[in-house]
Amino acid sequence: MKKGHQVTMKEIAKKLGVSVSTVSRALKDSPELHADTKTRIVEMAKSMNYQYNLLAQSLRISRSKVLGVIVPELTSHFFSSNISGIQDTAYKRGYNIMICQSNESFEQEKANVRTLVSSQVDGLLISLSRETKSYEHLQELYDREIPFIMFDRVTEEIPVSKVTVDDAHGAYLVVHHLLEQGFKKIAYFSGPEDLYISKKRKEGYLEALKEFGIPEKESRVYITDLTFEMNRKITLDMLQEQDRPDAIFAMIDPLAVEVMMILKENGVRIPEDIALAGFTNNPTSAVVEPSLTTVSQPGYEMGQLAANHLLDQLDELVSDDPQTFVLLTTLVARNSTKKTPKS
Amino acid sequence: MKKGHQVTMKEIAKKLGVSVSTVSRALKDSPELHADTKTRIVEMAKSMNYQYNLLAQSLRISRSKVLGVIVPELTSHFFSSNISGIQDTAYKRGYNIMICQSNESFEQEKANVRTLVSSQVDGLLISLSRETKSYEHLQELYDREIPFIMFDRVTEEIPVSKVTVDDAHGAYLVVHHLLEQGFKKIAYFSGPEDLYISKKRKEGYLEALKEFGIPEKESRVYITDLTFEMNRKITLDMLQEQDRPDAIFAMIDPLAVEVMMILKENGVRIPEDIALAGFTNNPTSAVVEPSLTTVSQPGYEMGQLAANHLLDQLDELVSDDPQTFVLLTTLVARNSTKKTPKS
Repeated sequence: MKKGHQVTMKEIAKKLGVSVSTVSRALKDSPELHADTKTRIVEMAKSMNYQYNLLAQSLRISRSKVLGVIVPELTSHFFSSNISGIQDTAYKRGYNIMICQSNESFEQEKANVRTLVSSQVDGLLISLSRETKSYEHLQELYDREIPFIMFDRVTEEIPVSKVTVDDAHGAYLVVHHLLEQGFKKIAYFSGPEDLYISKKRKEGYLEALKEFGIPEKESRVYITDLTFEMNRKITLDMLQEQDRPDAIFAMIDPLAVEVMMILKENGVRIPEDIALAGFTNNPTSAVVEPSLTTVSQPGYEMGQLAANHLLDQLDELVSDDPQTFVLLTTLVARNSTKKTPKS
Repeated sequence: MKKGHQVTMKEIAKKLGVSVSTVSRALKDSPELHADTKTRIVEMAKSMNYQYNLLAQSLRISRSKVLGVIVPELTSHFFSSNISGIQDTAYKRGYNIMICQSNESFEQEKANVRTLVSSQVDGLLISLSRETKSYEHLQELYDREIPFIMFDRVTEEIPVSKVTVDDAHGAYLVVHHLLEQGFKKIAYFSGPEDLYISKKRKEGYLEALKEFGIPEKESRVYITDLTFEMNRKITLDMLQEQDRPDAIFAMIDPLAVEVMMILKENGVRIPEDIALAGFTNNPTSAVVEPSLTTVSQPGYEMGQLAANHLLDQLDELVSDDPQTFVLLTTLVARNSTKKTPKS
């Protein structure tokens, strides 16, 4: 992938205050536009020394009918649901998909982008790795006008369409539910603090506390690196506290299930002694005992929406202007947070 | 992908009774071979009108450093473990992987093969869909000398290397364990009868029964299409039987977990009233209550072995002659099959 600045349609659009699709249509001499608009755009393109991107053009004209997908990990139920949604949608519209996983590694993610671009996919759907903090590889895709959108793990740095779920609201829902059930001292078991979801779910947790008159200084946040050892340590330490929590909101279901096992091993009854809730709605959460209260994320629907939007852009059914879609989460109340007569 | 018969190195090898790699080395004029062996092979190649496969050659020479992987489904823990093993191995050896899923569809599998071949992968690792009963798409890969191997869901029809697990032995282990624990009337809950794993695991089930003096006519096989409705129906019907089983071996863990829920809903105690075991060792099986006895399949190791073998073939560290690797399974005994004092 070569570097070196090339003027893009996006820059022309910005200069003239029109949309990218208007520029695109003008440069293709589309009959839908007024002649003077077209002239204005073509003149600007010439003055900026715009070179019609042959690669992008050939991609658009001779399509491979393949979309590339990059996800952080395939063992996660959430990402494999995303992929099912993407694949079913793509297949209905005559496309196949090729999937790469970054294994949460920035280097692997960059290699994945190179691999899929070399394979001449028509467009990409990307969910970022945990390590990804710089975005040159995405900026390059953008500059080369290779169509892509981001989902779930996204960055605001690159102006392409994004599909996310409302993490803060989901956390708010579950903590609000715990408070409504009569639990008063609610702990938040959080992953590493720099993770986007750690922050967003903390926002929702604090918001719900505030609504019930509990100030942030009375919040109870426990941080784990999500290894089994540390999950065990924070749980056992918490059990030793004099004024210990009566409920735990764990940031993700796999953490909640591990905490459940540790509590049960230590003779703690759920929810009688301590209530417990998670976030993700993994299949496992429905079959543990007690069944786990959690937040359902529409992973399949997210994949569908992302694929449909990208294909709509490729088919020029919608403009290339970036849009952000936020999908709502829903509370799944189960036995692990049931109000008990005593509390 | 064009059709039409082309003489292959494999045919030359067969005609002369030498290995494919010997033919390959002779045609490359390798100094490792005796001059007369080389002459004999080159003469035969000429007489058979062999055309050195330019595509295969260019694939070998200018490598994309990408392997293609086709799996039936990504939501399965087993296949995502395979992929992790493949990816870690490939990455260590400087390769990236692109994954396609067939969704258990024959048509989708054929599309996946086309997509990955068009993307010029250096080789493929393929696990067949449930629907795949004819193999022209694989025969074509073979005829075009595009390197590939099969894993887990394989066919004997195509002479390439294969990596599988010993399904029959795993089933034997778990049923043997149930019999040893003192259970006498053991049911086998099987998926559709034409599935390879349904048959193989039945073999192991029958073998263990036989060892304990129970003839096949006293075996208790229940067939389900693996939908929740049918799983429920066979379980409830079984509970109504006068002489009902005292233990169930379910063909796969997800089926076992569903059966566990149904039994518990109906007040059946596990293992006191009916013992229960599965096969796969999914993470869920460790956290249900009671924890589920199962058979562990080395999914990650299988992926590692498959990737290493394919890359060894590409690097000519091993011959192209097909090999079959069978990995052993191990019993994971947990609470769902614990001997109880009464039985």
